Amino acid sequence: MEFTLEDISAQEFERRRELFGPLADSVRELIDAVIRTEVDEDIVHDAHAQIVSVVESLRTRQIEGSFGVRHTADMKGMPWGNAVIGLRNAVAPPLQLTRQDNGLVTTDFTLGAAYEGPPGCVHGGVCAMVLDHVLGQAGSADDVPCYTGTLTMRYLRPTPLGRLHAEAIIAERDGRKKIVRGAISDAHGETVTAEGVFIVPKDWAGVMPETPRPPAR
Amino acid sequence: MEFTLEDISAQEFERRRELFGPLADSVRELIDAVIRTEVDEDIVHDAHAQIVSVVESLRTRQIEGSFGVRHTADMKGMPWGNAVIGLRNAVAPPLQLTRQDNGLVTTDFTLGAAYEGPPGCVHGGVCAMVLDHVLGQAGSADDVPCYTGTLTMRYLRPTPLGRLHAEAIIAERDGRKKIVRGAISDAHGETVTAEGVFIVPKDWAGVMPETPRPPAR
Repeated sequence: MEFTLEDISAQEFERRRELFGPLADSVRELIDAVIRTEVDEDIVHDAHAQIVSVVESLRTRQIEGSFGVRHTADMKGMPWGNAVIGLRNAVAPPLQLTRQDNGLVTTDFTLGAAYEGPPGCVHGGVCAMVLDHVLGQAGSADDVPCYTGTLTMRYLRPTPLGRLHAEAIIAERDGRKKIVRGAISDAHGETVTAEGVFIVPKDWAGVMPETPRPPAR
Repeated sequence: MEFTLEDISAQEFERRRELFGPLADSVRELIDAVIRTEVDEDIVHDAHAQIVSVVESLRTRQIEGSFGVRHTADMKGMPWGNAVIGLRNAVAPPLQLTRQDNGLVTTDFTLGAAYEGPPGCVHGGVCAMVLDHVLGQAGSADDVPCYTGTLTMRYLRPTPLGRLHAEAIIAERDGRKKIVRGAISDAHGETVTAEGVFIVPKDWAGVMPETPRPPAR
Protein backbone atom coordinates (compact mmCIF):
# COMPACT_ATOMS: atom_id res chain seq x y z
CA MET A 1 0.00 0.00 0.00
CA GLU A 2 1.72 3.16 -1.16
CA PHE A 3 0.80 6.79 -0.74
CA THR A 4 1.74 9.11 -3.58
CA LEU A 5 3.44 12.46 -3.20
CA GLU A 6 2.80 14.99 -5.94
CA ASP A 7 5.18 17.92 -5.93
CA ILE A 8 2.71 20.57 -7.07
CA SER A 9 2.16 24.21 -6.06
CA ALA A 10 -0.85 25.45 -4.09
CA GLN A 11 -1.94 27.13 -7.31
CA GLU A 12 -1.78 23.90 -9.31
CA PHE A 13 -3.68 22.13 -6.52
CA GLU A 14 -6.46 24.72 -6.82
CA ARG A 15 -6.45 24.54 -10.61
CA ARG A 16 -7.02 20.78 -10.52
CA ARG A 17 -9.67 21.08 -7.82
CA GLU A 18 -11.58 23.63 -9.90
CA LEU A 19 -11.16 21.57 -13.06
CA PHE A 20 -12.20 18.14 -11.81
CA GLY A 21 -14.71 19.09 -9.08
CA PRO A 22 -17.35 20.39 -11.50
CA LEU A 23 -16.68 17.51 -13.92
CA ALA A 24 -17.40 14.90 -11.22
CA ASP A 25 -20.43 16.93 -10.06
CA SER A 26 -21.87 16.78 -13.57
CA VAL A 27 -21.41 12.99 -13.53
CA ARG A 28 -23.26 12.84 -10.18
CA GLU A 29 -26.15 14.65 -11.89
CA LEU A 30 -25.90 12.21 -14.80
CA ILE A 31 -26.11 9.17 -12.49
CA ASP A 32 -29.29 10.60 -10.99
CA ALA A 33 -30.76 11.48 -14.40
CA VAL A 34 -30.10 7.98 -15.79
CA ILE A 35 -32.07 6.46 -12.91
CA ARG A 36 -34.99 8.87 -13.18
CA THR A 37 -35.36 9.68 -16.86
CA GLU A 38 -38.50 8.84 -18.81
CA VAL A 39 -37.49 10.30 -22.16
CA ASP A 40 -38.04 8.55 -25.47
CA GLU A 41 -35.78 5.83 -26.75
CA ASP A 42 -34.03 8.01 -29.35
CA ILE A 43 -32.93 10.51 -26.70
CA VAL A 44 -31.56 7.66 -24.56
CA HIS A 45 -29.64 6.32 -27.57
CA ASP A 46 -28.22 9.80 -28.27
CA ALA A 47 -27.23 10.18 -24.62
CA HIS A 48 -25.51 6.80 -24.69
CA ALA A 49 -23.54 7.67 -27.84
CA GLN A 50 -22.43 11.01 -26.38
CA ILE A 51 -21.30 9.45 -23.10
CA VAL A 52 -19.31 6.77 -24.94
CA SER A 53 -17.62 9.53 -26.93
CA VAL A 54 -16.81 11.59 -23.80
CA VAL A 55 -15.31 8.48 -22.15
CA GLU A 56 -13.18 7.91 -25.22
CA SER A 57 -11.86 11.49 -25.15
CA LEU A 58 -11.03 11.31 -21.42
CA ARG A 59 -9.28 7.96 -21.81
CA THR A 60 -6.84 9.20 -24.47
CA ARG A 61 -4.45 9.90 -21.58
CA GLN A 62 -5.03 8.35 -18.16
CA ILE A 63 -3.19 6.87 -15.20
CA GLU A 64 -2.78 3.13 -14.88
CA GLY A 65 -4.97 1.53 -12.25
CA SER A 66 -6.65 3.50 -9.48
CA PHE A 67 -6.11 7.07 -8.28
CA GLY A 68 -4.43 6.10 -5.01
CA VAL A 69 -4.13 8.42 -2.04
CA ARG A 70 -2.07 11.46 -2.95
CA HIS A 71 -0.81 14.47 -1.10
CA THR A 72 1.18 17.57 -1.99
CA ALA A 73 4.72 18.24 -0.75
CA ASP A 74 3.27 20.33 2.10
CA MET A 75 1.02 17.37 3.01
CA LYS A 76 -2.23 18.77 1.69
CA GLY A 77 -4.36 15.67 1.09
CA MET A 78 -5.85 14.76 -2.29
CA PRO A 79 -8.01 11.73 -1.52
CA TRP A 80 -9.83 12.57 -4.74
CA GLY A 81 -10.48 9.01 -5.86
CA ASN A 82 -11.97 7.93 -2.51
CA ALA A 83 -15.34 6.14 -2.76
CA VAL A 84 -16.86 8.21 0.07
CA ILE A 85 -15.13 11.60 0.03
CA GLY A 86 -13.45 11.71 -3.39
CA LEU A 87 -13.78 15.02 -5.24
CA ARG A 88 -13.20 13.23 -8.58
CA ASN A 89 -15.21 10.13 -7.74
CA ALA A 90 -18.88 10.42 -8.71
CA VAL A 91 -19.74 7.32 -6.65
CA ALA A 92 -18.92 9.45 -3.57
CA PRO A 93 -21.72 11.82 -2.41
CA PRO A 94 -18.98 13.20 -1.55
CA LEU A 95 -18.95 13.60 2.22
CA GLN A 96 -17.24 16.66 3.69
CA LEU A 97 -16.09 16.01 7.23
CA THR A 98 -15.41 18.49 10.02
CA ARG A 99 -13.26 17.61 13.00
CA GLN A 100 -14.02 19.50 16.21
CA ASP A 101 -11.47 20.27 18.92
CA ASN A 102 -12.80 17.49 21.16
CA GLY A 103 -12.26 14.93 18.40
CA LEU A 104 -15.88 14.75 17.26
CA VAL A 105 -16.10 14.22 13.50
CA THR A 106 -19.32 15.41 11.87
CA THR A 107 -20.80 15.65 8.40
CA ASP A 108 -24.02 16.98 6.90
CA PHE A 109 -24.90 15.52 3.54
CA THR A 110 -27.69 14.74 1.12
CA LEU A 111 -28.35 11.32 -0.39
CA GLY A 112 -30.57 11.14 -3.46
CA ALA A 113 -31.94 8.46 -5.78
CA ALA A 114 -28.50 6.92 -6.40
CA TYR A 115 -28.26 5.71 -2.79
CA GLU A 116 -31.65 4.02 -2.55
CA GLY A 117 -32.35 0.58 -1.11
CA PRO A 118 -35.90 0.18 0.20
CA PRO A 119 -38.35 2.54 -1.56
CA GLY A 120 -37.58 6.15 -0.62
CA CYS A 121 -34.89 5.06 1.84
CA VAL A 122 -31.12 4.91 1.93
CA HIS A 123 -29.69 1.43 1.25
CA GLY A 124 -28.60 -0.09 4.57
CA GLY A 125 -25.24 -0.83 2.96
CA VAL A 126 -24.79 2.84 2.07
CA CYS A 127 -25.44 3.73 5.73
CA ALA A 128 -22.73 1.23 6.65
CA MET A 129 -20.39 2.75 4.07
CA VAL A 130 -20.89 6.25 5.45
CA LEU A 131 -20.46 5.10 9.05
CA ASP A 132 -17.32 3.13 8.24
CA HIS A 133 -15.74 6.29 6.88
CA VAL A 134 -16.93 8.68 9.60
CA LEU A 135 -15.92 6.29 12.41
CA GLY A 136 -12.55 5.72 10.74
CA GLN A 137 -11.90 9.46 10.63
CA ALA A 138 -12.99 9.89 14.25
CA GLY A 139 -10.74 6.98 15.21
CA SER A 140 -7.68 8.79 13.92
CA ALA A 141 -8.75 12.26 15.13
CA ASP A 142 -6.15 11.96 17.93
CA ASP A 143 -3.46 11.66 15.23
CA VAL A 144 -2.56 8.15 16.37
CA PRO A 145 -3.02 5.96 13.29
CA CYS A 146 -5.27 2.92 13.51
CA TYR A 147 -7.05 0.45 11.29
CA THR A 148 -10.58 -0.89 11.48
CA GLY A 149 -10.83 -4.16 13.41
CA THR A 150 -14.57 -4.61 13.67
CA LEU A 151 -17.53 -2.42 12.87
CA THR A 152 -21.07 -3.03 14.12
CA MET A 153 -24.14 -1.25 12.82
CA ARG A 154 -27.45 -1.23 14.64
CA TYR A 155 -30.36 -0.34 12.37
CA LEU A 156 -32.98 1.47 14.45
CA ARG A 157 -35.35 2.39 11.63
CA PRO A 158 -35.20 3.11 7.89
CA THR A 159 -33.08 6.13 6.90
CA PRO A 160 -35.03 8.36 4.51
CA LEU A 161 -33.34 9.73 1.39
CA GLY A 162 -32.63 13.45 1.74
CA ARG A 163 -30.71 15.60 4.18
CA LEU A 164 -28.77 13.63 6.80
CA HIS A 165 -26.17 14.06 9.50
CA ALA A 166 -23.48 11.69 10.74
CA GLU A 167 -20.97 11.96 13.55
CA ALA A 168 -18.55 9.85 15.55
CA ILE A 169 -16.01 10.15 18.37
CA ILE A 170 -13.53 8.01 20.28
CA ALA A 171 -15.62 6.86 23.25
CA GLU A 172 -13.19 4.53 25.07
CA ARG A 173 -9.62 3.27 24.94
CA ASP A 174 -8.38 -0.11 25.96
CA GLY A 175 -4.69 -0.77 25.36
CA ARG A 176 -4.12 -0.64 21.62
CA LYS A 177 -7.86 -0.51 20.98
CA LYS A 178 -9.92 2.59 20.44
CA ILE A 179 -13.69 2.16 20.70
CA VAL A 180 -15.39 4.66 18.39
CA ARG A 181 -19.13 5.34 18.46
CA GLY A 182 -21.25 7.22 15.99
CA ALA A 183 -24.59 7.48 14.23
CA ILE A 184 -26.52 8.67 11.22
CA SER A 185 -29.50 10.92 11.98
CA ASP A 186 -32.32 12.51 10.07
CA ALA A 187 -34.41 15.45 11.32
CA HIS A 188 -36.18 13.13 13.80
CA GLY A 189 -33.09 11.60 15.41
CA GLU A 190 -30.81 8.60 14.99
CA THR A 191 -31.60 5.97 12.36
CA VAL A 192 -28.44 3.83 12.52
CA THR A 193 -25.85 3.70 15.30
CA ALA A 194 -22.40 2.19 14.96
CA GLU A 195 -19.53 1.03 17.12
CA GLY A 196 -16.11 0.33 15.76
CA VAL A 197 -13.03 -1.21 17.32
CA PHE A 198 -9.93 0.39 15.83
CA ILE A 199 -6.48 -1.07 16.38
CA VAL A 200 -3.30 0.97 16.81
CA PRO A 201 -0.28 -0.64 15.07
CA LYS A 202 2.23 -2.09 17.56
CA ASP A 203 4.96 0.48 16.90
CA TRP A 204 2.55 3.32 17.69
CA ALA A 205 1.12 1.93 20.93
CA GLY A 206 3.57 3.91 23.09
CA VAL A 207 2.11 7.25 22.06
CA MET A 208 -1.52 6.48 22.96
CA PRO A 209 -3.01 9.21 25.16
CA GLU A 210 -3.47 7.93 28.73
CA THR A 211 -6.61 9.89 29.52
CA PRO A 212 -9.66 8.94 27.53
CA ARG A 213 -11.53 11.67 25.71
CA PRO A 214 -15.12 12.34 26.80
CA PRO A 215 -17.48 9.68 25.41
CA ALA A 216 -19.84 10.59 22.58
CA ARG A 217 -22.98 9.67 24.46
CA MET B 1 -42.55 2.47 2.22
CA GLU B 2 -44.35 1.50 -0.95
CA PHE B 3 -43.48 -0.96 -3.66
CA THR B 4 -44.56 -0.07 -7.17
CA LEU B 5 -46.31 -2.41 -9.58
CA GLU B 6 -45.81 -1.68 -13.28
CA ASP B 7 -48.24 -3.46 -15.53
CA ILE B 8 -45.86 -4.08 -18.44
CA SER B 9 -45.36 -7.02 -20.79
CA ALA B 10 -42.32 -9.30 -20.73
CA GLN B 11 -41.36 -7.69 -24.04
CA GLU B 12 -41.53 -4.15 -22.61
CA PHE B 13 -39.49 -5.32 -19.60
CA GLU B 14 -36.78 -6.57 -21.98
CA ARG B 15 -36.91 -3.41 -24.08
CA ARG B 16 -36.27 -1.25 -21.00
CA ARG B 17 -33.53 -3.55 -19.75
CA GLU B 18 -31.75 -3.37 -23.09
CA LEU B 19 -32.23 0.39 -23.29
CA PHE B 20 -31.08 1.43 -19.82
CA GLY B 21 -28.50 -1.28 -19.06
CA PRO B 22 -25.97 -0.07 -21.65
CA LEU B 23 -26.67 3.58 -20.73
CA ALA B 24 -25.80 2.97 -17.06
CA ASP B 25 -22.78 0.89 -18.11
CA SER B 26 -21.47 3.83 -20.13
CA VAL B 27 -21.84 6.03 -17.03
CA ARG B 28 -19.87 3.46 -15.00
CA GLU B 29 -17.08 3.82 -17.57
CA LEU B 30 -17.38 7.59 -17.32
CA ILE B 31 -17.05 7.55 -13.52
CA ASP B 32 -13.84 5.56 -13.89
CA ALA B 33 -12.51 7.80 -16.66
CA VAL B 34 -13.15 11.00 -14.65
CA ILE B 35 -11.06 9.60 -11.79
CA ARG B 36 -8.18 8.44 -13.99
CA THR B 37 -7.97 10.94 -16.84
CA GLU B 38 -4.88 13.07 -17.44
CA VAL B 39 -6.04 14.89 -20.55
CA ASP B 40 -5.58 18.60 -21.12
CA GLU B 41 -7.84 21.20 -19.61
CA ASP B 42 -9.73 21.98 -22.83
CA ILE B 43 -10.76 18.33 -23.25
CA VAL B 44 -12.00 18.29 -19.64
CA HIS B 45 -14.01 21.46 -20.28
CA ASP B 46 -15.52 19.94 -23.44
CA ALA B 47 -16.37 16.75 -21.56
CA HIS B 48 -18.05 18.77 -18.82
CA ALA B 49 -20.15 20.76 -21.30
CA GLN B 50 -21.25 17.59 -23.08
CA ILE B 51 -22.23 15.84 -19.84
CA VAL B 52 -24.25 18.88 -18.71
CA SER B 53 -26.05 18.82 -22.05
CA VAL B 54 -26.79 15.06 -21.81
CA VAL B 55 -28.16 15.54 -18.29
CA GLU B 56 -30.41 18.31 -19.56
CA SER B 57 -31.78 16.12 -22.35
CA LEU B 58 -32.47 13.20 -19.97
CA ARG B 59 -34.17 15.47 -17.45
CA THR B 60 -36.74 16.84 -19.93
CA ARG B 61 -39.03 14.07 -18.70
CA GLN B 62 -38.29 12.23 -15.47
CA ILE B 63 -40.00 10.70 -12.44
CA GLU B 64 -40.32 12.66 -9.22
CA GLY B 65 -38.01 11.51 -6.47
CA SER B 66 -36.28 8.15 -6.48
CA PHE B 67 -36.86 5.03 -8.61
CA GLY B 68 -38.38 2.96 -5.84
CA VAL B 69 -38.62 -0.81 -5.94
CA ARG B 70 -40.77 -1.92 -8.83
CA HIS B 71 -42.02 -5.20 -10.12
CA THR B 72 -44.10 -6.35 -13.06
CA ALA B 73 -47.60 -7.80 -12.74
CA ASP B 74 -46.11 -11.32 -12.79
CA MET B 75 -43.75 -10.27 -9.95
CA LYS B 76 -40.59 -9.97 -11.98
CA GLY B 77 -38.42 -7.62 -9.91
CA MET B 78 -37.04 -4.33 -11.24
CA PRO B 79 -34.78 -3.12 -8.42
CA TRP B 80 -33.09 -1.00 -11.08
CA GLY B 81 -32.41 2.02 -8.90
CA ASN B 82 -30.79 0.00 -6.10
CA ALA B 83 -27.40 1.32 -4.93
CA VAL B 84 -25.83 -2.17 -4.97
CA ILE B 85 -27.62 -4.17 -7.66
CA GLY B 86 -29.42 -1.50 -9.71
CA LEU B 87 -29.23 -1.99 -13.49
CA ARG B 88 -29.88 1.75 -14.01
CA ASN B 89 -27.77 2.96 -11.08
CA ALA B 90 -24.14 3.63 -12.03
CA VAL B 91 -23.16 3.81 -8.34
CA ALA B 92 -23.91 0.07 -8.19
CA PRO B 93 -21.12 -2.23 -9.51
CA PRO B 94 -23.86 -3.79 -10.02
CA LEU B 95 -23.77 -7.07 -8.09
CA GLN B 96 -25.48 -10.08 -9.63
CA LEU B 97 -26.49 -12.56 -6.98
CA THR B 98 -27.12 -16.29 -7.28
CA ARG B 99 -29.13 -18.21 -4.73
CA GLN B 100 -28.29 -21.90 -4.38
CA ASP B 101 -30.76 -24.58 -3.29
CA ASN B 102 -29.30 -24.72 0.22
CA GLY B 103 -29.89 -20.98 0.67
CA LEU B 104 -26.31 -19.90 0.01
CA VAL B 105 -26.21 -16.55 -1.80
CA THR B 106 -23.08 -15.88 -3.85
CA THR B 107 -21.74 -13.21 -6.15
CA ASP B 108 -18.59 -12.73 -8.20
CA PHE B 109 -17.82 -9.14 -9.06
CA THR B 110 -15.09 -6.68 -9.98
CA LEU B 111 -14.41 -3.42 -8.15
CA GLY B 112 -12.30 -0.80 -9.90
CA ALA B 113 -10.97 2.67 -9.17
CA ALA B 114 -14.40 4.01 -8.18
CA TYR B 115 -14.49 1.83 -5.07
CA GLU B 116 -11.06 2.70 -3.68
CA GLY B 117 -10.26 3.61 -0.09
CA PRO B 118 -6.64 2.84 0.91
CA PRO B 119 -4.29 2.90 -2.11
CA GLY B 120 -5.10 0.00 -4.44
CA CYS B 121 -7.69 -1.39 -2.03
CA VAL B 122 -11.45 -1.45 -1.71
CA HIS B 123 -12.84 1.14 0.73
CA GLY B 124 -13.80 -0.64 3.96
CA GLY B 125 -17.19 1.03 3.70
CA VAL B 126 -17.72 -0.45 0.25
CA CYS B 127 -16.97 -3.91 1.68
CA ALA B 128 -19.60 -3.20 4.34
CA MET B 129 -22.06 -2.08 1.66
CA VAL B 130 -21.57 -5.27 -0.35
CA LEU B 131 -21.85 -7.49 2.73
CA ASP B 132 -24.99 -5.71 3.94
CA HIS B 133 -26.66 -6.54 0.65
CA VAL B 134 -25.41 -10.11 0.30
CA LEU B 135 -26.28 -10.98 3.91
CA GLY B 136 -29.69 -9.34 3.50
CA GLN B 137 -30.43 -11.49 0.46
CA ALA B 138 -29.21 -14.64 2.23
CA GLY B 139 -31.37 -13.73 5.21
CA SER B 140 -34.52 -13.82 3.11
CA ALA B 141 -33.47 -16.82 1.00
CA ASP B 142 -35.94 -18.94 2.99
CA ASP B 143 -38.74 -16.66 1.72
CA VAL B 144 -39.54 -15.50 5.25
CA PRO B 145 -39.14 -11.71 5.16
CA CYS B 146 -36.83 -10.04 7.66
CA TYR B 147 -35.09 -6.76 8.26
CA THR B 148 -31.53 -6.05 9.34
CA GLY B 149 -31.16 -5.65 13.11
CA THR B 150 -27.40 -5.52 13.50
CA LEU B 151 -24.51 -6.13 11.15
CA THR B 152 -20.92 -6.71 12.25
CA MET B 153 -17.93 -6.67 9.94
CA ARG B 154 -14.55 -8.10 10.89
CA TYR B 155 -11.75 -6.74 8.72
CA LEU B 156 -9.09 -9.45 8.41
CA ARG B 157 -6.83 -7.68 5.91
CA PRO B 158 -7.13 -5.11 3.12
CA THR B 159 -9.32 -6.14 0.19
CA PRO B 160 -7.52 -5.51 -3.10
CA LEU B 161 -9.33 -3.84 -5.99
CA GLY B 162 -10.11 -6.34 -8.75
CA ARG B 163 -11.97 -9.61 -8.96
CA LEU B 164 -13.78 -10.59 -5.75
CA HIS B 165 -16.30 -13.05 -4.41
CA ALA B 166 -18.89 -12.69 -1.66
CA GLU B 167 -21.30 -15.16 -0.13
CA ALA B 168 -23.61 -15.56 2.83
CA ILE B 169 -26.05 -18.06 4.35
CA ILE B 170 -28.41 -18.36 7.29
CA ALA B 171 -26.22 -20.03 9.93
CA GLU B 172 -28.52 -20.14 12.96
CA ARG B 173 -32.08 -19.36 14.02
CA ASP B 174 -33.23 -18.19 17.39
CA GLY B 175 -36.94 -17.40 17.69
CA ARG B 176 -37.64 -14.46 15.38
CA LYS B 177 -33.92 -13.95 14.76
CA LYS B 178 -31.92 -15.32 11.87
CA ILE B 179 -28.14 -15.22 12.23
CA VAL B 180 -26.58 -14.81 8.81
CA ARG B 181 -22.85 -15.21 8.17
CA GLY B 182 -20.85 -14.31 5.12
CA ALA B 183 -17.58 -12.99 3.75
CA ILE B 184 -15.78 -11.24 0.94
CA SER B 185 -12.82 -13.12 -0.52
CA ASP B 186 -10.09 -12.49 -3.03
CA ALA B 187 -8.01 -15.20 -4.74
CA HIS B 188 -6.12 -15.78 -1.46
CA GLY B 189 -9.11 -16.23 0.84
CA GLU B 190 -11.35 -14.16 3.09
CA THR B 191 -10.62 -10.47 3.60
CA VAL B 192 -13.74 -9.38 5.53
CA THR B 193 -16.22 -11.58 7.37
CA ALA B 194 -19.65 -10.47 8.50
CA GLU B 195 -22.41 -11.56 10.83
CA GLY B 196 -25.88 -10.10 10.70
CA VAL B 197 -28.87 -10.50 12.97
CA PHE B 198 -32.04 -10.31 10.92
CA ILE B 199 -35.45 -9.94 12.52
CA VAL B 200 -38.65 -11.55 11.25
CA PRO B 201 -41.70 -9.28 11.62
CA LYS B 202 -44.10 -10.47 14.36
CA ASP B 203 -46.90 -11.49 11.99
CA TRP B 204 -44.50 -13.78 10.10
CA ALA B 205 -42.94 -15.52 13.08
CA GLY B 206 -45.35 -18.47 12.86
CA VAL B 207 -43.97 -19.60 9.51
CA MET B 208 -40.30 -19.81 10.56
CA PRO B 209 -38.81 -23.21 9.65
CA GLU B 210 -38.18 -25.25 12.79
CA THR B 211 -35.04 -27.00 11.61
CA PRO B 212 -32.03 -24.78 11.09
CA ARG B 213 -30.25 -24.93 7.76
CA PRO B 214 -26.64 -26.13 7.74
CA PRO B 215 -24.26 -23.40 8.94
CA ALA B 216 -22.04 -21.60 6.43
CA ARG B 217 -18.75 -22.57 8.08
